[in-house]
Amino acid sequence: MTSKRLLLGTGVALAAAVTASAPAFAEVSGETAYIFNTFSFLICGFLVMFMAAGFAMLESGMVRSKNVATICVKNIALYSIAGLMFYLIGYDLMYGIDEGGYIGSFSLFWSPDDAAALAEEGATFDAGYSASSDWFFQMVFVATAASIVSGTVAERVKLWPFLIFVAVLTAVIYPIQGSWEWGAGWLDAEFGFSDFAGSTLVHSTGGWAALMGAIIIGARKGKYSAEGRINPMPGSSMPLATLGTFILWLGWFGFNGGSQLALGSAADAIAISDIFANTNAAAAGGVVAAMIASQLMYKKVDLTMALNGAIGGLVSITAEPLAPTIGNSVLIGGVGGVLVVLAVPLLDKLKIDDVVGAIPAHLVCGIWGTLAVPLTNSDASFGGQLVGIIAIGLFVSIASAIVWLALKFTVGVRVDEEDEVMGLDRSELGMEAYPEFGAGGSQRM
Amino acid sequence: MTSKRLLLGTGVALAAAVTASAPAFAEVSGETAYIFNTFSFLICGFLVMFMAAGFAMLESGMVRSKNVATICVKNIALYSIAGLMFYLIGYDLMYGIDEGGYIGSFSLFWSPDDAAALAEEGATFDAGYSASSDWFFQMVFVATAASIVSGTVAERVKLWPFLIFVAVLTAVIYPIQGSWEWGAGWLDAEFGFSDFAGSTLVHSTGGWAALMGAIIIGARKGKYSAEGRINPMPGSSMPLATLGTFILWLGWFGFNGGSQLALGSAADAIAISDIFANTNAAAAGGVVAAMIASQLMYKKVDLTMALNGAIGGLVSITAEPLAPTIGNSVLIGGVGGVLVVLAVPLLDKLKIDDVVGAIPAHLVCGIWGTLAVPLTNSDASFGGQLVGIIAIGLFVSIASAIVWLALKFTVGVRVDEEDEVMGLDRSELGMEAYPEFGAGGSQRM
Amino acid sequence: MTSKRLLLGTGVALAAAVTASAPAFAEVSGETAYIFNTFSFLICGFLVMFMAAGFAMLESGMVRSKNVATICVKNIALYSIAGLMFYLIGYDLMYGIDEGGYIGSFSLFWSPDDAAALAEEGATFDAGYSASSDWFFQMVFVATAASIVSGTVAERVKLWPFLIFVAVLTAVIYPIQGSWEWGAGWLDAEFGFSDFAGSTLVHSTGGWAALMGAIIIGARKGKYSAEGRINPMPGSSMPLATLGTFILWLGWFGFNGGSQLALGSAADAIAISDIFANTNAAAAGGVVAAMIASQLMYKKVDLTMALNGAIGGLVSITAEPLAPTIGNSVLIGGVGGVLVVLAVPLLDKLKIDDVVGAIPAHLVCGIWGTLAVPLTNSDASFGGQLVGIIAIGLFVSIASAIVWLALKFTVGVRVDEEDEVMGLDRSELGMEAYPEFGAGGSQRM
Repeated sequence: MTSKRLLLGTGVALAAAVTASAPAFAEVSGETAYIFNTFSFLICGFLVMFMAAGFAMLESGMVRSKNVATICVKNIALYSIAGLMFYLIGYDLMYGIDEGGYIGSFSLFWSPDDAAALAEEGATFDAGYSASSDWFFQMVFVATAASIVSGTVAERVKLWPFLIFVAVLTAVIYPIQGSWEWGAGWLDAEFGFSDFAGSTLVHSTGGWAALMGAIIIGARKGKYSAEGRINPMPGSSMPLATLGTFILWLGWFGFNGGSQLALGSAADAIAISDIFANTNAAAAGGVVAAMIASQLMYKKVDLTMALNGAIGGLVSITAEPLAPTIGNSVLIGGVGGVLVVLAVPLLDKLKIDDVVGAIPAHLVCGIWGTLAVPLTNSDASFGGQLVGIIAIGLFVSIASAIVWLALKFTVGVRVDEEDEVMGLDRSELGMEAYPEFGAGGSQRM
Repeated sequence: MTSKRLLLGTGVALAAAVTASAPAFAEVSGETAYIFNTFSFLICGFLVMFMAAGFAMLESGMVRSKNVATICVKNIALYSIAGLMFYLIGYDLMYGIDEGGYIGSFSLFWSPDDAAALAEEGATFDAGYSASSDWFFQMVFVATAASIVSGTVAERVKLWPFLIFVAVLTAVIYPIQGSWEWGAGWLDAEFGFSDFAGSTLVHSTGGWAALMGAIIIGARKGKYSAEGRINPMPGSSMPLATLGTFILWLGWFGFNGGSQLALGSAADAIAISDIFANTNAAAAGGVVAAMIASQLMYKKVDLTMALNGAIGGLVSITAEPLAPTIGNSVLIGGVGGVLVVLAVPLLDKLKIDDVVGAIPAHLVCGIWGTLAVPLTNSDASFGGQLVGIIAIGLFVSIASAIVWLALKFTVGVRVDEEDEVMGLDRSELGMEAYPEFGAGGSQRM
Repeated sequence: MTSKRLLLGTGVALAAAVTASAPAFAEVSGETAYIFNTFSFLICGFLVMFMAAGFAMLESGMVRSKNVATICVKNIALYSIAGLMFYLIGYDLMYGIDEGGYIGSFSLFWSPDDAAALAEEGATFDAGYSASSDWFFQMVFVATAASIVSGTVAERVKLWPFLIFVAVLTAVIYPIQGSWEWGAGWLDAEFGFSDFAGSTLVHSTGGWAALMGAIIIGARKGKYSAEGRINPMPGSSMPLATLGTFILWLGWFGFNGGSQLALGSAADAIAISDIFANTNAAAAGGVVAAMIASQLMYKKVDLTMALNGAIGGLVSITAEPLAPTIGNSVLIGGVGGVLVVLAVPLLDKLKIDDVVGAIPAHLVCGIWGTLAVPLTNSDASFGGQLVGIIAIGLFVSIASAIVWLALKFTVGVRVDEEDEVMGLDRSELGMEAYPEFGAGGSQRM
């Protein structure tokens, strides 16, 4: 029901319908609304862009020091590639789809055409926002999905093959599944699937791709011993992981708030404000719930659980950050926080090695958040939500597995055992993240 | 005079009166102003929210490596708890107060009701901004006050008792004193106390709570020797402390700028712009003054003095960031920077152990900034300012002391001596912030 | 042609002309446009302000641990001093110039006067934006130029002499060259020089000042051996360098987007949106091109090349982020990324020791970006661009050299050899950035 890219005027109308809050009159001129809508996309977009830094810091803090430089290069490269691929082909594939369709149009090199159009005689402001602002906002979402993958498969995946996976994910896999819902394709048209800002479309998509990678690439050497012992491999810098989480939290205001897609009316302004309050509440609920759960289960609070609790709470509210009350948002996020604490050891039992806990936070909570939509939004149904979760889950998993396997049996996806022990920073980059200290430290001057 | 939450229309009118700059006509429609006001709250609010990351990094950098993970978990937890408490009870306690009153209304679970109201026939945009945007903006202020405390009492306070203190501070103590002024209670109504963005209401409040904590909990083991020697315990990461300070500086534009509470007229836009320029000038003045002062006093520039000089300058201008010229702002901030350099050794002489220097920067400069208001704003008087400083100082100190003492004599507020020596990361969390390096480093792989 | 500070109304009109996209009618009221323009300056301004943190982190990560605290204090001090100098004298020198003139007016203590003016009878909103918002936006640009210098001359320049250089650069050198173009001086009036957001005016200016410093101060001890061997001195923290680059990337949306100088029409909104998309595309192109180039040249990807590739791409698009298509932006940025990879070893051959690679990224790419303007903007000519590059290059280089030399032969610019070996943190500050670990680590508790 929440097609992410709306046609002329629909955005405002839909927003008003959703929030049931438009007064009988509107005082905002078309051009003023146009500027507000556009500015909202740009501001929310730069917040989401900054999430790339958040993921980079979270992952830098969660890997061992011998792999930190490599995870940094992966993060800046994947953000870059996501933007290039979405420009090259992704955006048109995602939004150039017929209503109710299954696949969008293949056309290369997206470009905005509204500056010229606006100059023509008889031009109106009905488009509602500038084309590039929407493109920018959608592009940073693609990058987010790709960021999720890098953390899970860290510390053993080869650099260039990983980036090839990112290119395919962001050029083809993400846009196709995204088109089904936000492009107004079949999921949106036929099943009333509802995913406001992307619990499923972004976070679970990244999560499924990560899960397939973790299975196909296999666990880090030594992580699971033959006798079934789990060897902890603690991250190298907790403050960087904490910083990353705070940056993600900040970015999420743009992620969810901007998904209102409009700021051109008081009703939109109210909606975005409610989304800000709910998003924060869910994250707070996730933190506190995860801390309590880890205190109860392990008699200690674990910082990484608190951090992933925040992310789990945020992912959980992302499918529907507008309809719930603040209290319901706390509960939805709190369940997410508990799910993270439960899912982390479960994955370890299954010997699925997820370095940063991205699968619990993004995939498990993404499913939970999507299923929770009908609890507060009567326009959605459990059936419709299930169809969306399963359809996208199957498509992304199968497509990702094909790409991972193709890479595995051609260029290879995993570094040599020896290189893994030495650390990817030396083997892949020939450098060290902390040359003067840390386990890999050798150069001292 | 600057009630922080204004009723219909008053906001714009007051702003205009303060800046004496409204033209005879107004061209902005009510709905457009509504969107501007709301958007300003959201943007300034996310900047202030990000200050939580700033405090986390500043404190991570200023504690020793064996306590870094614990300070991280405290910071993300306190931000979460502050939001939950302000939702649970704080906001209504702060703003549901009769004009001139002493205590607000106790009601649970705040919720916005404006979306429905706006949809009714005859609805207007007179509210001026969305309810949730104001709630969000005020909530991040509460969190800031709590953040101040964690740094001072770091490295020896127990995790859960500290969080209980935070819950009481943000649910009850902060809102009650806040209601006296920003809720239009007695301080605002009877004494003309003026505190634009919270030198006293936010920063001194955090500072008094921190001071009581530092006294009741006591200094870190080994900090002050029996012979009166002060043992320096340098922080583990200066770049993280620097990053934290820059993030705080960034956030302060939202902190002070957003406290204009409106962006719906050119007069408001001018006011916020002047506030941005003055806020920056005061911080810059604080940095340079602190550097010069530490050069003169110690023959060396100290980085932590420069950083706290920035914060001291920012706190100093917060009570009145609009009325001064840029030059006066430099001076007000510069005095703050010098006060920081003077207050740090003074606290040490008093054997009050403030790990990050929060009391000099937030409490001392908060008092100075509040006293300085009448220098540039003729609506304020020294008498009124003193009443506010003393009333809030007494209330917060006594209330905080009661809570700290109650915790001390029940669950205990301080970790065992042995645990303190080992570091809180191991004793409280069972983990390390930098497992591969640092003093506490043991796991190397 | 792009005078950076526009007079009444011209801003909107010019923007419209540049993008050729104004509809026949305008719906936005003068006051609404005024607020939008002002808010855009403030938001873009705080993004650029945050670049100071980006430079601080980038440089902290790229220097050795014994010099990290010093580079932190330099960065927060230079940002502070830049703001104070621009207030003291710089702004009037830059913008108080006659059209076509060579030097602006010397007047002390800039202050805004628009609040009072707006309150007068007959006042209009023709100014287009608040004075302080423009001041703030221009001020953060000055600071950026100064930030570029600190990285190049790190690890051997004395603290206070460096800050004196910064004071002269930001008070006099930057404003004078800036006045020639953005102040509507001779370069703008007579040669049609075009530099939208400052590839030359900001980045090359910083680069020339840095180059002169590197030459006059000389290379770090041991960097170049007598036999011509280049001794690598790897930076102490790759994740901090990565974080710094992401922060710069984020800030650049404000840097380039805000340089549209207006948001008061749909045409402006479209222009800023296109600038966001192009800026991101150029950075992405820079990253990928630098990675491929370093893979081809060295058989390894180098993280610092990827990071500097992003910055090189961003600098390259800064002279003209509006006219190119996204595809052209990728190419312009990509060339910048390759230039970085080529220029870094070239500088080493010339024994010019640039600690962070600022000269390749800011100076070389600044020249490239300025020369590339006529490729996509027919209003600019190669001749005019060359005149601007040479005039500003000569002026900044000569002026900078004079200041560096004056400092060298008076107070001295370089620390003692012994102090350099020990590290500036101990010799200049008497402290350590990482007291518990790192090469300089001595205090362990």
